[in-house]
Amino acid sequence: MTAKFATYTADGQTFYGAATDVGMIALSPDFPQWPTLRDVIVAGGLGQLETAAQGREITHTNVTYEMPLPNTDRILCVGVNFPDRNAEYKDGSDAPKHMSLFPRFASGFTGHGQPLIRPPENHTLDYEGEVAIVIGKAGRRIQAVDAYGHIAAITICNEGTIRDWVRHAKFNVTQGKNWDKSAAIGPWIVPFKEASQLDDARIITRVNGEVRQDDTLSRMMFPIREEIAYISTFMTLKAGDIIVTGTPTGAGARFDPPRYLKPGDVVEVEVNGIGILRNGVEDEA
Amino acid sequence: MTAKFATYTADGQTFYGAATDVGMIALSPDFPQWPTLRDVIVAGGLGQLETAAQGREITHTNVTYEMPLPNTDRILCVGVNFPDRNAEYKDGSDAPKHMSLFPRFASGFTGHGQPLIRPPENHTLDYEGEVAIVIGKAGRRIQAVDAYGHIAAITICNEGTIRDWVRHAKFNVTQGKNWDKSAAIGPWIVPFKEASQLDDARIITRVNGEVRQDDTLSRMMFPIREEIAYISTFMTLKAGDIIVTGTPTGAGARFDPPRYLKPGDVVEVEVNGIGILRNGVEDEA
Repeated sequence: MTAKFATYTADGQTFYGAATDVGMIALSPDFPQWPTLRDVIVAGGLGQLETAAQGREITHTNVTYEMPLPNTDRILCVGVNFPDRNAEYKDGSDAPKHMSLFPRFASGFTGHGQPLIRPPENHTLDYEGEVAIVIGKAGRRIQAVDAYGHIAAITICNEGTIRDWVRHAKFNVTQGKNWDKSAAIGPWIVPFKEASQLDDARIITRVNGEVRQDDTLSRMMFPIREEIAYISTFMTLKAGDIIVTGTPTGAGARFDPPRYLKPGDVVEVEVNGIGILRNGVEDEA
Repeated sequence: MTAKFATYTADGQTFYGAATDVGMIALSPDFPQWPTLRDVIVAGGLGQLETAAQGREITHTNVTYEMPLPNTDRILCVGVNFPDRNAEYKDGSDAPKHMSLFPRFASGFTGHGQPLIRPPENHTLDYEGEVAIVIGKAGRRIQAVDAYGHIAAITICNEGTIRDWVRHAKFNVTQGKNWDKSAAIGPWIVPFKEASQLDDARIITRVNGEVRQDDTLSRMMFPIREEIAYISTFMTLKAGDIIVTGTPTGAGARFDPPRYLKPGDVVEVEVNGIGILRNGVEDEA
């Protein structure tokens, strides 16, 4: 069975633990030296969590999923990373030589099963299904061939965006990509043990059951190995950093007319070997 | 006397304390409940630091300044925010309706007196003198008229940039703005008590004594009050967040030919009422 570790709230308290088909096994009470799942990652402790979860009883069945690493301080997203994505921009530009990158703050993400929030200021809330990786081993100028050795775990991201605000200013996408709880990561992280977990991964995004995005990581213009190499050229990657690796074609903005998310919609991002990240959509209260 | 609070290292240990003309007064040992200066900000404790520093003896005279809030997790920078800055881009575009924003990670900053690092990959290291604010009171959709009430302290930033990497990709400035220790914040933070501390502030940037930038915050296209209002529209600002408010014309990239920083250069950013942030330049070891 694939090990899956989630951060969740139950009975008014936040835990991390192992997710199973029938409920959670709380593990954080066993590891007071690691108060959060991020601390586990920093300590290289996922293997110990796996061992600790063996044969244990379910502790919680009624839980709220949180973003798995709510206290991570660095989330970097890769933009325009699938064939045809550059063409989607319809700006006549050549395919870029380097990958586009933008940071997102953790405050922009919610957990599995919680609603994406559509703000009153603008209703162009859009989905972007992606695979995210969690760095486990620090490094600077990591070679692409060594890159996978720096990944501790993988997860799923719906990199929700307020599309109109992405191009509000002269440059950057910052303000369209950082609305409170406009995106989601989860449901859990899965320890990364074999290259095939990423090399054979396929992203399928559905809105109300209709497939909107369907592509495989093998088609990325800038594969994950190269993302790690490129990013670590300018900054030392460290344990707990998250890289959101890029979305396929098919976001709502690319339809004519655009098909933005509205309250009551349900978005699912499915990645084989990880699971399904499912979020509803609500107007901000 | 203006209160000034720094994070610094002395005798192999990191402290925060009050900076005076003749040395540091360590205060962190008095406040174990607040391990870092960021914790002081979050607790609204700058006034208590001021009181505690009264009449105290100097504890350290040989110190290394650190970035004042090295553990802050959100730093947002405002781009293209002085008249003539848009024209500097020479791209024929109209003045933007909204401010440009980009996050920087804390890892990109060093402290006062420490060298800015020029990496071997690219030698277009450039300076940008700016005023930075530290949020003290959380808020969402803060009105401009109320914005100053959310500021705990002010400081100086040299928002150092690897210019060639700013335009490496299709969009964003991320990879030119996040090289390890390519920028600096400091030397200290000054509690924000009166509007005039910002409204009458003037930024002067010198390279080897030659004035390169000289402008006043009163000329900003998007004043700091509006920055806080705009940013808090999409994300809840919280105590400890830093906003780097924008640089005047005169960065090295805007000269013909460009005048980039090289090893041995000394850059000073002076802001009246705060002090002088001074950094040398070194090639990466």
